[in-house]
Amino acid sequence: MTTTTPSFPADSVGLVETRHFTFAQEEPFRLESGATLGPVTLAYETYGTLNRERSNAILILHALSGSQHAAGFHGPEERKPGWWDACIGPGKAFDTDRFFVICSNVLGSCYGSTGPASPDPATGKPYGLRFPVVTIADMVNAQVKLLDYLGIQQLLCVAGGSMGGMQALEWAAHHPDRLRAAIPLATTARHSPMQIAFSEVGRQAIYADPAWNQGDYYDKPAKPDAGLAVARMVGHITYLSEESMHRKFGRRLKDRERYGYEFQTEFEVESYLKYNGNNFTRRFDANSYLYITKAMDYFDLSAPTGSLPAAFANSAHLKYLVVSFDSDWLYPSYHSKELVSALTAVGADVTYLDIESSWGHDAFLLEVETMTDLLGSFLDRLAREEGVAPPEPALTQARPDTSPHPAQVRL
Amino acid sequence: MTTTTPSFPADSVGLVETRHFTFAQEEPFRLESGATLGPVTLAYETYGTLNRERSNAILILHALSGSQHAAGFHGPEERKPGWWDACIGPGKAFDTDRFFVICSNVLGSCYGSTGPASPDPATGKPYGLRFPVVTIADMVNAQVKLLDYLGIQQLLCVAGGSMGGMQALEWAAHHPDRLRAAIPLATTARHSPMQIAFSEVGRQAIYADPAWNQGDYYDKPAKPDAGLAVARMVGHITYLSEESMHRKFGRRLKDRERYGYEFQTEFEVESYLKYNGNNFTRRFDANSYLYITKAMDYFDLSAPTGSLPAAFANSAHLKYLVVSFDSDWLYPSYHSKELVSALTAVGADVTYLDIESSWGHDAFLLEVETMTDLLGSFLDRLAREEGVAPPEPALTQARPDTSPHPAQVRL
Repeated sequence: MTTTTPSFPADSVGLVETRHFTFAQEEPFRLESGATLGPVTLAYETYGTLNRERSNAILILHALSGSQHAAGFHGPEERKPGWWDACIGPGKAFDTDRFFVICSNVLGSCYGSTGPASPDPATGKPYGLRFPVVTIADMVNAQVKLLDYLGIQQLLCVAGGSMGGMQALEWAAHHPDRLRAAIPLATTARHSPMQIAFSEVGRQAIYADPAWNQGDYYDKPAKPDAGLAVARMVGHITYLSEESMHRKFGRRLKDRERYGYEFQTEFEVESYLKYNGNNFTRRFDANSYLYITKAMDYFDLSAPTGSLPAAFANSAHLKYLVVSFDSDWLYPSYHSKELVSALTAVGADVTYLDIESSWGHDAFLLEVETMTDLLGSFLDRLAREEGVAPPEPALTQARPDTSPHPAQVRL
Repeated sequence: MTTTTPSFPADSVGLVETRHFTFAQEEPFRLESGATLGPVTLAYETYGTLNRERSNAILILHALSGSQHAAGFHGPEERKPGWWDACIGPGKAFDTDRFFVICSNVLGSCYGSTGPASPDPATGKPYGLRFPVVTIADMVNAQVKLLDYLGIQQLLCVAGGSMGGMQALEWAAHHPDRLRAAIPLATTARHSPMQIAFSEVGRQAIYADPAWNQGDYYDKPAKPDAGLAVARMVGHITYLSEESMHRKFGRRLKDRERYGYEFQTEFEVESYLKYNGNNFTRRFDANSYLYITKAMDYFDLSAPTGSLPAAFANSAHLKYLVVSFDSDWLYPSYHSKELVSALTAVGADVTYLDIESSWGHDAFLLEVETMTDLLGSFLDRLAREEGVAPPEPALTQARPDTSPHPAQVRL
């Protein structure tokens, strides 16, 4: 479906649509815990065109609160593009003129994929806490099914930040024959106690909300919005840096000149947190927050063997671009350095950058220029070395600034 | 009252008692906001003996969740001493053989001082949110009344960490004729946006608890324990460092060997947070948490003049020992460095140390050996330079290891 939407920017993938893929309808999907699940649906989007050799596919992996909607617009009137639109599009870091970009919502999330809000086939009612605990490995195993369905034997690359980076590492470590390269950004090979602590506080805030009701609230008048908002506020603090908070808010008061000496929102930083916390409850499911943070906390690539290099023993032939940001205190640079040491130890081709940025953990979304240069040149080299042909129609075709870009893939 | 309690350690102040001082019974106490309050009670304790010249008094200032019970034991069977017992006692950093140590609970707290849980004389019922918002300046102004009552014109020193350090700075900046020296530890001259953000998330967790009921819960069957516990858990994370979390907990599981794939407390760090969060609700009042965090957020010594040096313009004759800890990310070292710059700019006598420690913000309570050396030598010099005489009985008197120490001051 190509729609004329001249209002979108020229470097946008334009109008896009979420699609759904369902599997495990007959034989259930086996999870890392040993539990089974079925049927399983993944919501996904694609941008750009797959080349004839099916060798130009890049899988984008989203973070805790992300979705499959990584680029473009869902409607002609929509003003807010997908979450990584700054990096996905014609001429952007993930150049949709050259690459076929896929983004899938993770298992357990609430954007159309199977999760705790989905109907349990056994009862017809939402799973709630009867939904099995899923892991990063389960999320990736479900994405493998999606790739099979899309007929893509080997990805050129997987890329993601934060929890997206964990999935990228899981892909590299446990499905090394299904990809050529991995780009883990602002992430870790195992969740640290501080990361677990912040996750747990978010979960405790949700548990503390009586409306949570042990996860059974889907048919109730009230949802655990208050608890979810607090969880999101905690998260938001950890995504920023001290410096970015100083710049964004300082000690400025919101719409007032002096202290009110009362318990109202007074400082700009309070107003920001409250706004974002409340806003989040309109787009996210509290149970999904529990399940996804739990998956992140369980993530430890070194656990099975006790050593991180051993985890990549079969993945030394892949290429890696590892990026951290020096003001990211939630996923500090030393996590990436440990990862780079392990990859180097097994002889992998690793490029590592610790980028100077004041944006904290959010930098992987905000340092667009740096990311465009960095990812662009890595992908350039990768495409050259792997002999990736451009998709048809040929790249050389002129694209006037005012014309829309064909956003939907034709498989 | 001197009691024989041979079970206490020889370097303990022994059995101590909280006392209460009430003022503003006739003329109400005027707060920074313009509101008035009365009567006002402060709970306090003292350790050691005031000398004849009344020149050896040190005021200890507590942090957010602290109390007047800084040292010694409240009963012969009690096993847990006051919160800064490691630093207060005969031969310790604050040597009670030489100094008369006072610690007062802050206005707004819940350990016997007037706060939101106190009865409002207008109604006879607890104030709740009708309690006026208080500031660090109000807390200190109330302590000035206590000193007047104790007949102490000039303190040798004030000392405290975190919010205690804010009070120390407030004392120095606005009551410079009432003290000779100040020891602000792990603190700031103005709360940063990140500090405000963490405070606000704690408050939002309390607001989100339906049992909070706009602060009106004192005669209700349920208290906002769930919200207060979440607030405390957030706080606890900020008091630790990444390194101390790695050491204390790592990714170790609590009483189990493998993941349970369910929403139970599994990691040791989760168990620690939950235990401390729940424990806190047994000893602290949710409304006090709101009021005291608000006082910290309002704290900005530079606000009246727009400049930190100007705040200390009349306090250049005092001596300062400023201490920060390099792993403290809640009150990072640069806050102390800004303070030291300002004090140096006005020509004050400042000693500054940024101590290497892995304990994070908690270091000011845990780095006992370093603190003992550092505070000890600063106080030694101070006592010498100020010509402070030892109290009677003279210091030279032998103190056998098994004998109790006279804990209560005789004024």
